[in-house]
Amino acid sequence: MKSLLLVAHGSRKASSNDEVRQLTENLAGKATGHFDDVRCAFLELAEPSIPDGLQQCADAGADEIVVFPYFLSAGRHVVEDIPGEIDKKKDELSSVRIRQADYLGSLDGIVDMMLNAVT
Amino acid sequence: MKSLLLVAHGSRKASSNDEVRQLTENLAGKATGHFDDVRCAFLELAEPSIPDGLQQCADAGADEIVVFPYFLSAGRHVVEDIPGEIDKKKDELSSVRIRQADYLGSLDGIVDMMLNAVT
Repeated sequence: MKSLLLVAHGSRKASSNDEVRQLTENLAGKATGHFDDVRCAFLELAEPSIPDGLQQCADAGADEIVVFPYFLSAGRHVVEDIPGEIDKKKDELSSVRIRQADYLGSLDGIVDMMLNAVT
Repeated sequence: MKSLLLVAHGSRKASSNDEVRQLTENLAGKATGHFDDVRCAFLELAEPSIPDGLQQCADAGADEIVVFPYFLSAGRHVVEDIPGEIDKKKDELSSVRIRQADYLGSLDGIVDMMLNAVT
């Protein structure tokens, strides 16, 4: 079973965290056939944490988890903090394959999507 | 003449600002026929500022500027700060039509783009 865990920074503003949760629902609605389970987690300021999110995926039966960083740049959060949070669970979830995907801002499709939105 | 001004938050990390500048170049390379001029500006921590970016567009001959917020959520930056920065130049650039586009995180295409990247 394959899980997608969308990881956002987290905000003090509840509506910003709710935007991430809504996006997660939208992803789940379209992920059929690719992911059996789609969830979100937050690096800080909101729940669940990344370790808790990974555990939720495992509890749901995942043997593979793709962690998708919902971040715009390859800053410390993407390069160090998210891998560090994943590492906290690696031993405990040693039977689960966990892979961190490319972050949002690095995706090839972003230029076309942005231009489509404003032309 | 129509300009696209990509507005990012700005970072203390130079490489994150450079990612925005690279994205701007990629947008410029694909914007032919839609925008005559593509630039970026930063809300804080990097140059040019939004007022300076708008002025650069006007100096390049723009009579229409689309300001694209490269932000993930409808937080204070998108709802208050960017419009506030635009307002600082509205009187001075009264002959230029300036429009703030929907922010990145709100775009319909984002779900499909993300799923394409991980499936």
